[in-house]
Amino acid sequence: MSDVNVRVPGFLANGISVGIKGDGKKDLALINSVVPARAVGVFTTNRFKAAPVILDMERIKRGLAQAIVVNSGNANASTGEPGYDDAVAMSRAVADGLAISEELVLVASTGIIGERLPVDKIIAGTNELIQGLTVDGLPRAEESIMTTDKFPKVAWEKCLIGGREISVCGIAKGAGMIEPNMATMLSFIMTDALIDQRYLNRVFRQSVDKSFHAITVDGCMSTNDTVIMLANGIAGNALLKERSPGAVLFRKTLDRVMINLAREIVRDGEGATKVIHIIVDEARSRKEAQKIAYCIANSSLVKTAFYGGDPNWGRIIAAVGSAGIPVSPDSVRLFLDDIPLFHNGTGVREGREKLSDIMQNNSIQVLVKLGMGRQSFELFASDLTHEYVTVNAHYHT
Amino acid sequence: MSDVNVRVPGFLANGISVGIKGDGKKDLALINSVVPARAVGVFTTNRFKAAPVILDMERIKRGLAQAIVVNSGNANASTGEPGYDDAVAMSRAVADGLAISEELVLVASTGIIGERLPVDKIIAGTNELIQGLTVDGLPRAEESIMTTDKFPKVAWEKCLIGGREISVCGIAKGAGMIEPNMATMLSFIMTDALIDQRYLNRVFRQSVDKSFHAITVDGCMSTNDTVIMLANGIAGNALLKERSPGAVLFRKTLDRVMINLAREIVRDGEGATKVIHIIVDEARSRKEAQKIAYCIANSSLVKTAFYGGDPNWGRIIAAVGSAGIPVSPDSVRLFLDDIPLFHNGTGVREGREKLSDIMQNNSIQVLVKLGMGRQSFELFASDLTHEYVTVNAHYHT
Repeated sequence: MSDVNVRVPGFLANGISVGIKGDGKKDLALINSVVPARAVGVFTTNRFKAAPVILDMERIKRGLAQAIVVNSGNANASTGEPGYDDAVAMSRAVADGLAISEELVLVASTGIIGERLPVDKIIAGTNELIQGLTVDGLPRAEESIMTTDKFPKVAWEKCLIGGREISVCGIAKGAGMIEPNMATMLSFIMTDALIDQRYLNRVFRQSVDKSFHAITVDGCMSTNDTVIMLANGIAGNALLKERSPGAVLFRKTLDRVMINLAREIVRDGEGATKVIHIIVDEARSRKEAQKIAYCIANSSLVKTAFYGGDPNWGRIIAAVGSAGIPVSPDSVRLFLDDIPLFHNGTGVREGREKLSDIMQNNSIQVLVKLGMGRQSFELFASDLTHEYVTVNAHYHT
Repeated sequence: MSDVNVRVPGFLANGISVGIKGDGKKDLALINSVVPARAVGVFTTNRFKAAPVILDMERIKRGLAQAIVVNSGNANASTGEPGYDDAVAMSRAVADGLAISEELVLVASTGIIGERLPVDKIIAGTNELIQGLTVDGLPRAEESIMTTDKFPKVAWEKCLIGGREISVCGIAKGAGMIEPNMATMLSFIMTDALIDQRYLNRVFRQSVDKSFHAITVDGCMSTNDTVIMLANGIAGNALLKERSPGAVLFRKTLDRVMINLAREIVRDGEGATKVIHIIVDEARSRKEAQKIAYCIANSSLVKTAFYGGDPNWGRIIAAVGSAGIPVSPDSVRLFLDDIPLFHNGTGVREGREKLSDIMQNNSIQVLVKLGMGRQSFELFASDLTHEYVTVNAHYHT
């Protein structure tokens, strides 16, 4: 994959500055499919959903969308009915400019919470935004949705299904704090595959579970988290369904794109210096494995130990034991990369000298074998650093 | 209350150094009742319970104890069967020295995890420990159980029940990290009240729920957390029971001692600069209120905002919404001290200028009214600071 030439047939994109961020940086993005596309989405389960999330959840029920307009610099969250009206107005301006139905336009916002969206600036910029739409505009769109992200997150894969080349591409912004507020995750995935709606919905949700639902930076859930996928069918392949030839290949391609984006979000987590790859194996159920993995990943003691390069396995064991799952200390085994750290209820002494070296790596694997069953869960997490505290403490309203 | 003269009739205590910590600081404590006392305890629910916790949970079932021996510097956790044998040996040395049954001796440990307890040092020091027992020895005992605690935590109250003076006294050590390992909470409560075992068990558990179960430093659960209460009946009062005159007074006195200790633990939390008093009110159940309170208290974004003095109510609202309770954004109200911050689904603009001042205080109240019911939960939490990261990242094995 090459970032220079990221494109998906039938999708146009653009990103411009309309002055929401106030520092002249790009802050308004548009993704536009040349035809109405099948649309699926996953949204934050936070009870305080931002206005654009509420709007999208209504509109995406129809399963069709043709455009996604996204602003950064203002989350349009905790803004009540006026905020909802602003989200509608933002979608209407884009629908009018593209001469499509308002119902086909989805909206996303990220940035400061509790402030009215400067929707006039957005409406005033819509014409320029639409006129600048190009087939190679995705990097500009990505740039426009970034906040404190240190690098852009674009993933692009192709596969050959029934002799047709299919593209899958995604952009994402991560848990970057926006002065002075929320950590928000946004991602937009595009494909030109012709795909059955029910099957699309299924593979999309499966991929989300393996990617965006398997990462954590600080365990906090935003009011704006949104992942939307559009499939415009332009590739002209035979309709992809549950048992189509190529269905497995498509699913794997989609997984790669979404897992790639999710891991980039962790790598670019606020203040992060390390990516911790946590695998909980031999669980009775995937859900129990997940619960333990998140207990490890969100333990401040574990996260600071990784930051400090301290191979402090006692904290990992304590996190495993605090998850509320009836694990047995005698059957749990713990490994850091390949080094066994804990078995038979006690620490392993051999090989400890290698640990300090491993802890210096910027990507480390924690493997916990529970000895209870056959299910597993994998999770990517960042460490907890001085920089995290600085970024999140020292922005003032 | 005066720290100089802390004592409870019929209780002796001492604390000495036997070289576990290695820096010459006191590391072995003993509390001894002159007669067998009614004993109740609450222990960590972590699945990886330390050896002394496993031992105490067995012994305390009988409801009687006469001594508690505690070491700091080594947690005797993740030490397997040899660790359990060490805990037994530690109790036996004390039982032999005091000429009481081994079954009447409880044990607690705090410190490094996964290392064998230097039980020989403890046994060798037992004679000196016992010979130094005095009625005013509790401050020495407290000093011996401290690890990275910055100040001792002793609480002492008296009340008059049926013409008899009753003392209730407690000592505690907080969530201080011990090179290089666990944050552990230990507390030992003594009273000379004569009290019915069932009633003691009930008021003790109620007090724990209001105190040690209503605080959080970093949301991590140790393998060693222990709260034990001994009641030796020396005061000679009429047996305190469920509906005794004086039962309410006794309960309130006990609450004061335990809540006092718990709050001191938060104030002395690792790197803490602020105590955040979180009240979730108008919940459908106490359990739901508790869940939301902990979501706020353990949100890294909320904790860093308090550290930075940033009145960032959006983070609190997002934490409330992420608790998995079906709160309605329209009915939730949020206050910082007396200042309303959020109502009717949006932020409140009036009074915001006072917020920066409030955020400079080292004790701040967060009040969330859910508008769903009549139950509430209160919780004390510390902030998340650079110092927390330093303390926990920069100890190396």
